[in-house]
Amino acid sequence: MGNAIPTQTPSSRTQMDFEDVIMEEGTSGTKVHPVVSPPYKSSLQKFFTKVKETFFPDDPLRQFKGQPFHRKLILGAQYMFPLLEWAPCYSFKLFKSDLISGLTIASLAIPQGISYAKLANLPAILGLCEYVDFACSVAYDSSFIPPLVYVVLGSSMDLAVGPVSIASLVLGSMITEEVSPTAEPDLFLQLALTSTFFAGIFQAALGILRLGFIIDFLSKAILIGFMGGSAVIVALQQLKGLLGITHFTKKMALVPVLMVVANDIDGFLLLDITTGRKTYSGAPLVSVIISTVVAFLIKAPRHGISVIGKLPRGINPPSVDKLHFQGDHIGLVIKTGLITGILSLTEGIAVGRTFATIRNYKVDGNKEMMAIGLMNVVGSTTSCYVTTGSFSRSAINHNAGARTAMSNVVMSLTVLMTLLFLLPLFKYTPNVILGAIIIAAVIGLIDIPSAYLIWKIDKFDFVVMLTAFFGVIFISVQMGLAIAVALSVLRILLQITRPKTVMLGNIPRTNIYRNIHHYKEAIRVPGFLILSIEAPINFANITYLNERIFRWVEEEASTVENVCLQFLILDMSAVSNIDTSGVSLFKDLKATLTMKGVDIVLVNPLAEVIDKLQKSYDANDFIRADYLFLTVGEAVASLSSVMKRQRPTKDDQEIHTIVTEN
Amino acid sequence: MGNAIPTQTPSSRTQMDFEDVIMEEGTSGTKVHPVVSPPYKSSLQKFFTKVKETFFPDDPLRQFKGQPFHRKLILGAQYMFPLLEWAPCYSFKLFKSDLISGLTIASLAIPQGISYAKLANLPAILGLCEYVDFACSVAYDSSFIPPLVYVVLGSSMDLAVGPVSIASLVLGSMITEEVSPTAEPDLFLQLALTSTFFAGIFQAALGILRLGFIIDFLSKAILIGFMGGSAVIVALQQLKGLLGITHFTKKMALVPVLMVVANDIDGFLLLDITTGRKTYSGAPLVSVIISTVVAFLIKAPRHGISVIGKLPRGINPPSVDKLHFQGDHIGLVIKTGLITGILSLTEGIAVGRTFATIRNYKVDGNKEMMAIGLMNVVGSTTSCYVTTGSFSRSAINHNAGARTAMSNVVMSLTVLMTLLFLLPLFKYTPNVILGAIIIAAVIGLIDIPSAYLIWKIDKFDFVVMLTAFFGVIFISVQMGLAIAVALSVLRILLQITRPKTVMLGNIPRTNIYRNIHHYKEAIRVPGFLILSIEAPINFANITYLNERIFRWVEEEASTVENVCLQFLILDMSAVSNIDTSGVSLFKDLKATLTMKGVDIVLVNPLAEVIDKLQKSYDANDFIRADYLFLTVGEAVASLSSVMKRQRPTKDDQEIHTIVTEN
Repeated sequence: MGNAIPTQTPSSRTQMDFEDVIMEEGTSGTKVHPVVSPPYKSSLQKFFTKVKETFFPDDPLRQFKGQPFHRKLILGAQYMFPLLEWAPCYSFKLFKSDLISGLTIASLAIPQGISYAKLANLPAILGLCEYVDFACSVAYDSSFIPPLVYVVLGSSMDLAVGPVSIASLVLGSMITEEVSPTAEPDLFLQLALTSTFFAGIFQAALGILRLGFIIDFLSKAILIGFMGGSAVIVALQQLKGLLGITHFTKKMALVPVLMVVANDIDGFLLLDITTGRKTYSGAPLVSVIISTVVAFLIKAPRHGISVIGKLPRGINPPSVDKLHFQGDHIGLVIKTGLITGILSLTEGIAVGRTFATIRNYKVDGNKEMMAIGLMNVVGSTTSCYVTTGSFSRSAINHNAGARTAMSNVVMSLTVLMTLLFLLPLFKYTPNVILGAIIIAAVIGLIDIPSAYLIWKIDKFDFVVMLTAFFGVIFISVQMGLAIAVALSVLRILLQITRPKTVMLGNIPRTNIYRNIHHYKEAIRVPGFLILSIEAPINFANITYLNERIFRWVEEEASTVENVCLQFLILDMSAVSNIDTSGVSLFKDLKATLTMKGVDIVLVNPLAEVIDKLQKSYDANDFIRADYLFLTVGEAVASLSSVMKRQRPTKDDQEIHTIVTEN
Repeated sequence: MGNAIPTQTPSSRTQMDFEDVIMEEGTSGTKVHPVVSPPYKSSLQKFFTKVKETFFPDDPLRQFKGQPFHRKLILGAQYMFPLLEWAPCYSFKLFKSDLISGLTIASLAIPQGISYAKLANLPAILGLCEYVDFACSVAYDSSFIPPLVYVVLGSSMDLAVGPVSIASLVLGSMITEEVSPTAEPDLFLQLALTSTFFAGIFQAALGILRLGFIIDFLSKAILIGFMGGSAVIVALQQLKGLLGITHFTKKMALVPVLMVVANDIDGFLLLDITTGRKTYSGAPLVSVIISTVVAFLIKAPRHGISVIGKLPRGINPPSVDKLHFQGDHIGLVIKTGLITGILSLTEGIAVGRTFATIRNYKVDGNKEMMAIGLMNVVGSTTSCYVTTGSFSRSAINHNAGARTAMSNVVMSLTVLMTLLFLLPLFKYTPNVILGAIIIAAVIGLIDIPSAYLIWKIDKFDFVVMLTAFFGVIFISVQMGLAIAVALSVLRILLQITRPKTVMLGNIPRTNIYRNIHHYKEAIRVPGFLILSIEAPINFANITYLNERIFRWVEEEASTVENVCLQFLILDMSAVSNIDTSGVSLFKDLKATLTMKGVDIVLVNPLAEVIDKLQKSYDANDFIRADYLFLTVGEAVASLSSVMKRQRPTKDDQEIHTIVTEN
């Protein structure tokens, strides 16, 4: 190794400067920058700090500090009801923007509302005709009551709330596992509403208990895989329906086939809208109108084309009496509520955050959870199934110029007007168009570019994504999600179990030490093995670290033959945490290495690590000042001088070269 | 903030040196030490590196490198059968040591063997008398056959193998949950042996698949809590038995009471032995001999004192026919096998490692698993239940001077001799003495000093320990363990979910930047916010990091009024890993902070992080050379000069001060 070090003329100016500094620190024996103990904190203080960071990372009370009492009251009310923040400054100009965007999303909400109710298996509840009676009302209500709740409590200005495809699909498929929507339509409806109630309770509870980080475990990779898998299932189900229609209408196959094709074209337009790439937001409504008109003109039912049929006016009555909290299916509704709740929260909060970032305001995750949760609890008592902020409609809402949550009110009122006066007009809307709208919406969920990007960046994430995708398709929604989450967590655990240890080398003419396998110019320092441990040290990895460090030492001993290894320098800058088992690692390492004549030196242990080493009688001599340095450079400089004094041998000159180089 | 910086005379010598160096780097515009891309590695190479680090951290093939073929053969054989390593150099001198220690542990193995079989509920199998017939043989065999297997395959020189208290207890209590040892003794025996078979299979499989790190999840804290809880249960069970005896012998209560007292004294001696603090290893044998002689002299059975009774000579026949792999209880035996297998592995490997560290040789965890596993598979076919390396007997073995695994052979042969010729002598041994031996052994498992140390070092570990302790006592062995492991894993996940971000400040007159709340002399650099992120960035923490960093920026903006914040420097030295979600954090941060006029600069991202940022089109401008530095010092120096040039305002002078200080 020694001859790998470039020989420098000591007259080089920069060289001299550094040398002087180092020699002053190194050879004087007293270090200029000691590692100090962290300031004292009691266990209780540490506990409260941890609780605060865990549950209140956003420090919600910060704005209250130092304010007079009445101001605190106002801030408190605004904190509870974000409506109060923007309502006082609401102007006609803002309303104009909100009106346009509200009408736009209402035009999308009407066809999507019917379609998503069908997706949730709510169609089959009372047979095809009756389904429409009921399910449309449910779906319409879902676009009617919940937005009014959200507008008071929600902190996003762009979110368009209502039923969404994923939650509809999961709700429908999970309840269908135990109860047939055709055989027991009333029970099915009760379970759907009770699940919605539980979803709301879970969502609000997550917000109140500030456990919002639980939804973080549904990573982007999982969601992409999950949405893709769901989309495939739904699209296949709907295609079956579409093909079934052509089968029924053999007599005059041209019209329906043409319509399917026409719907497909609409579908592709919708695909673009759903993914927010185009703002041709009228497509679903236009296709509904055109197809309804065509169906009316050709008298579609006479040709066997299934249409929605007669729709009664009016809104559904309260549904509190339909919530059932006992009986055989209570486990199912809780499970369904939990999963649809978490899924719809994930979508709602992700959408909210995305648009908040674009417009540079903050969405409070925990507040959103409470808003969405309460919205669903109220919804479940007014014949609405799970609602949240929809990706596609929020994008359209944002693009149509929405300024505040008021656009939701406009949408809600428009839907109400439709419920009350315009429903009969949809009598001739072909069911096939609803299938096309669903397919178009869900196909937009298959996100190939993101999948490709994940493949490019991180192969393991890609595997997680595929797991979610195939798990959802071949096993079930909840199992697919559970396996993918378990795999992600396993990966984190594996990273902890096998932390990286890298060998550092000196970058010539500096005090900088970096990974020798990354920075090719970095050189080893004879007599030293400098390792950086890049993870917390705990029970899960001490065995590995012990073995791995021992292997580094053995390899170093076998490669560097010139100078025998005297010091193992452990750079602890990246060890953010240590536990009782971790503390014993140092004791074990010392026991092994002392016999090999190698001393262990710690560099820059962080506050928590120092704290715990001090408290352990096994390891507290690692905190002795002469084996503790603030930087690797200082450790090498200081120990080189010790080494030189101890062993004035043939490699004296070599060590001197190193010292001068640092 | 500005006035907190001590004004330095530029003529100070050290000061000048640093200033020159920094100015050269900072103002010339070209950085001396660029961050470079890591050397190219294909996905396959990375995958193999990861697999190697995960499954072969000890690099077992290292010693084969560059050896001639016949040497490789020998090394291979030695790798498979560690016996071949030491057998060729085995000498009479070594044998003398092993003989003494072997006899010593045999004297312990005989009484403990009977006691532990009782602990495993094997006592009650064929009623009290028949139990002895059978269970003794089982227990004796467990000290007879398995050691012979271990001596060939095991790599520890100090391990004394045989039945141990924890595995005996767990085996007995888990099978008793489904099958009564008194009602169905034959079935109970079959299940015990089949469980042993599965335990062996699991253990060997963990070794072969190199999944040994799974046992690392039973942390020291969990084991201490678990052993304490088990000890309490066992001691209470045995005490009930002891009290039961005094109840039965009302006619002449003095002798048994005295004996209980005498046994207690033995017990306390044993306690010391078990925990390895004394080497008075003869205590159990002596107490067995004395009590047997006393019981013989006073004709104990006539006074109602329960004794072992007639013991047939000879060893048990093979028990392959007793293994059953179908039927109702297959789930139970697999579960029992898994838990006893993992528990006995944990004990065996921990013991092996402890003594290997003391004598400075290496124990290969995966090899040990295969050895212990095979030992149990063979054992299950020869009437032995789960065996492993015992803490107490290994300590005695080591203290008695054992040099190689040969002491196990001596023990095994001694036990064989006893089985064949000496068993009738134990006819009068009172059962109560066995209870005392068990109590003494298990009380040694309650480790108060370690529990106190855990309390001192890490409160959360202490909670985990208590969970295991009370879980085992009040719920069940497997649930107690499972909850404690889940809690430990949850803690790791929580650490990942809430990574620390610390604010760095400059330590005056150096290039060093450290946590401003730990190093009180560290000072903020006006215009900069320097944060160090101390965990991998992934899906579980990007939301938190985003919020937390934003809060740092806001807090910084509200406290530093003199100079407005221009640069956020993220020290990435401790970010060992990043995933696809993590990559998006930078994009989101940039979107938020650009609007506040703050630029983001990365310092020292590690190889894997650079690699992934480069591949993401969202974040790859973070890898642009002008926003990427090798050290915080260089970043501050370089950016200060940019800042100075851009904004020659009133704080020009101040910035200059900073530059010269670095």
